[in-house]
Amino acid sequence: MNPESRNGNGADSLVKTLVANGVDVCFTNPGTSEMHFVSALDRIDGMRCVLGLFEGVVAGAADGYYRIADKPASTLLHLGPGLANGLANLHNAKKAGSGIVNIVGEHASYHLECNAPLTTDIEAIATPMSHWVRTSHSAADVARDGAAAITEARQPPGRIATLVLPADTAWNDGAAVAQAEAPAARRAPETASVADAARALTRGHPAALLLGDIAVREEALLLAGRIAAKTGCRILSEYALARLQRGAGRVTTERIPYAVDPALAMLKDVGELVLVGARVPVAFFAYPGKPGVLTAPGCQVTTLAASGDEQLAALQALAEHLGATSTRPAHLARLDRPGLPSGAITPEGIAAVLAALLPEHAIVVDESITTGRGFNPAMSAAAPHDWLNIVGGSIGWGLPAATGAAIAAPERTVIALEGDGSAMYTLQALWTMARESLNVKVLVFANRRYRILQGELANVGAGTPGRKADDMLSLDRPALDWVSLARGHGVDGQRADDLDGLAKCLSRALAAPGPSLIEVVI
Amino acid sequence: MNPESRNGNGADSLVKTLVANGVDVCFTNPGTSEMHFVSALDRIDGMRCVLGLFEGVVAGAADGYYRIADKPASTLLHLGPGLANGLANLHNAKKAGSGIVNIVGEHASYHLECNAPLTTDIEAIATPMSHWVRTSHSAADVARDGAAAITEARQPPGRIATLVLPADTAWNDGAAVAQAEAPAARRAPETASVADAARALTRGHPAALLLGDIAVREEALLLAGRIAAKTGCRILSEYALARLQRGAGRVTTERIPYAVDPALAMLKDVGELVLVGARVPVAFFAYPGKPGVLTAPGCQVTTLAASGDEQLAALQALAEHLGATSTRPAHLARLDRPGLPSGAITPEGIAAVLAALLPEHAIVVDESITTGRGFNPAMSAAAPHDWLNIVGGSIGWGLPAATGAAIAAPERTVIALEGDGSAMYTLQALWTMARESLNVKVLVFANRRYRILQGELANVGAGTPGRKADDMLSLDRPALDWVSLARGHGVDGQRADDLDGLAKCLSRALAAPGPSLIEVVI
Repeated sequence: MNPESRNGNGADSLVKTLVANGVDVCFTNPGTSEMHFVSALDRIDGMRCVLGLFEGVVAGAADGYYRIADKPASTLLHLGPGLANGLANLHNAKKAGSGIVNIVGEHASYHLECNAPLTTDIEAIATPMSHWVRTSHSAADVARDGAAAITEARQPPGRIATLVLPADTAWNDGAAVAQAEAPAARRAPETASVADAARALTRGHPAALLLGDIAVREEALLLAGRIAAKTGCRILSEYALARLQRGAGRVTTERIPYAVDPALAMLKDVGELVLVGARVPVAFFAYPGKPGVLTAPGCQVTTLAASGDEQLAALQALAEHLGATSTRPAHLARLDRPGLPSGAITPEGIAAVLAALLPEHAIVVDESITTGRGFNPAMSAAAPHDWLNIVGGSIGWGLPAATGAAIAAPERTVIALEGDGSAMYTLQALWTMARESLNVKVLVFANRRYRILQGELANVGAGTPGRKADDMLSLDRPALDWVSLARGHGVDGQRADDLDGLAKCLSRALAAPGPSLIEVVI
Repeated sequence: MNPESRNGNGADSLVKTLVANGVDVCFTNPGTSEMHFVSALDRIDGMRCVLGLFEGVVAGAADGYYRIADKPASTLLHLGPGLANGLANLHNAKKAGSGIVNIVGEHASYHLECNAPLTTDIEAIATPMSHWVRTSHSAADVARDGAAAITEARQPPGRIATLVLPADTAWNDGAAVAQAEAPAARRAPETASVADAARALTRGHPAALLLGDIAVREEALLLAGRIAAKTGCRILSEYALARLQRGAGRVTTERIPYAVDPALAMLKDVGELVLVGARVPVAFFAYPGKPGVLTAPGCQVTTLAASGDEQLAALQALAEHLGATSTRPAHLARLDRPGLPSGAITPEGIAAVLAALLPEHAIVVDESITTGRGFNPAMSAAAPHDWLNIVGGSIGWGLPAATGAAIAAPERTVIALEGDGSAMYTLQALWTMARESLNVKVLVFANRRYRILQGELANVGAGTPGRKADDMLSLDRPALDWVSLARGHGVDGQRADDLDGLAKCLSRALAAPGPSLIEVVI
């Protein structure tokens, strides 16, 4: 680079473009090919850089960040293999509608013909988990390409944009800062859809709203509550939600269960289903002899607003159409902090401890898999909070997502609920929590097995586990020691063997700043 | 499945086919869609199943296994995201020429239209890191498809074969066991190539053999030593080798350095380079103003045998052509166990401790990155051992590869040399070592930084790190506590702060069976 170059090098132009467009957090795990980008971060103000020690942490943090900040973060990943390590959490982000701007370093363009050890087809690796992939072809293009990536990532619902940055486009002279387009407006509700939805809810059949995407935020829920009060419909929500606003003062929803039989039971009497930011509910997996689509036979499905549409306006229009805008909302939750339970650890007991101690406006990141399935009722009467689910189903999302959520909202407490099996995939996130002094309290439910799979083995008709199958589904022999794992990453760890202990550990964790982990032995 | 079905279900037919063809180890991280395969493992004898708590462990273990067993293992991975988590180590395996049979579960074929949360384009995810990808289309095809995958994985050098197994092809009735084709013979040397190589070595220019692939095994090295003695040529080896046989009684090689300047210096006088299982040496990365190809201008390159060719026979033919079959080999290493050094930790001191204490026929897995670069001279005079490098350059390979190597050779001691940065990517391998009581001794060189990147920042002309760049390259604040991390995974941990301590810790670790970790504070 010419040191007198007005715009700096390509990496400078990209960092400036990101910052100028409000993308001011970068979750990073860089390598040699990204050193000019790292160096640009030194020279240019305005970007918060957060190091992850594994790329799954980086990608999952960007997902958690988007859900709370409602705007994309950037990631910095090292070549094709570094991107590959982030793919599982990019998958989760993609399914959750989280926007992310991935910056993936590449060999200098003229070096590719050498077929050096780390050479891969980066665009091919990126494509399955990205909505948009581009490789910059010259340093002068980098700012413009970066702005295009931001434009794409901001589309509602958020999208995964992956920009591949060959090293020479980072170190040669860059162009001026480029402006991304303003986020596209969400599609406004159509009069016909509103009228169709109103008819569906008032036809006299048992009816339900099914909410997803941003229709499970506080204001939208209140409107759904008014509509339910007016029409008698039920309010369901998808099994996995990017961000549910729940707790006292908010309208509660019935969460569609993970397991097929209870899901079918919940939906069996629903003759009219109105989708608001949701999809027709389907089984997570196929099971021999069970249906994939979970609605009852003959159920009529009406789409009021799709994911990415303006769901709040659609619910407002529907409430107006029904004359329900002043109706007192149904299913409004009131604060009901339970007393602290004691005795042996049970899922209900854990939920009661959580509900009793949950700080106002906490963010709860739920990757508790089997243990947390029944938490909904107790948590609905807890202090108001945001509840984030793993939407894409690829475990190893929770600790990274909690990290990103805490970066997005440093003033709030983040509580991460983790199965021990799922926490192990990306436990390196603990270190980032420690380095950044993030206010994350991690509860690891240590049942010492892939309990979900022990159930699934039977569900798919594969019988009961013999010795070898049991070995594949158990995490004991040896038991993981989560207190030591936390300490190893620089995080304070405690262990709770009963509900009294859990309440004590959680109180202590909430009273101190910074990250903390509690192993809840089940 | 019809319980009377003669062949069992598709999963049964696959497990039987794997076992019948000698693929008798499966590194697994299963999910719901693989439960029938897991169940089949219960019913069918002959498959050793090894659980990894993250898919990067599974894929890297299969790589390490192949290098020592010289035959493929299978992996069991959960859908597209599970495969994605394994891609980085599949990349390393692909670059190392390790054969692997990946079994990737998929939703039942009829469930794909539901677009359930975990639905992805698995073939697209597999393709960048696989030589061969196939999806079974019916249960009756599974045995045949499995045999085809084995045939492919066994091609020399080993190849990555990925078989996608929809759940219904696992649970419907399968066909009979299928036979894989015998491994293809490696291509025999051509008379013309042998004559060309002989001319290159005897033309009077400074000449060198450059060895890679299986040309760095003991017998091939002895032939190289005879040829060197006869012609005066040097014996070089590639920077990264799948499996170098080194130590007392073996012919030593000059390893091409990672850094460009010392590599150019090593090659500057080589006018004739004869490749045996090796490629023309190239720089790992591009650096402004430095060449990508490392041979000197005007250097003549002759290929005696490519990777995958019959390199031993080629060297034998060359030795015969030169009349060197009885020549005493040059560069034959003699055992020279140094005394145990003491004092502060230095790379040379670590190498001396290792060389002094190394058990005979140990397997050393080297992902020590910066710390281990200078170990070659001391280790050449140690007891004979196998030395495995990370070939694809994607860090997070060492602990998994050590796991797989130990499964392949339970009677041997495995020593894993790890940088702290690289060990963090796949530290979950420690748990598998504990569960399987593997005889792996892990040395983590805790320099608490990505030291290689601190050098690379300067090498690419990106200047000296400021505060933010330094944050991205440092692993302190907080320091990782490897003794606690080991304990958390069920592995005994020790810490060494000086060479005396390292010698004590390593002696203690070698005296006890099972896994053990030493944090070497640098």
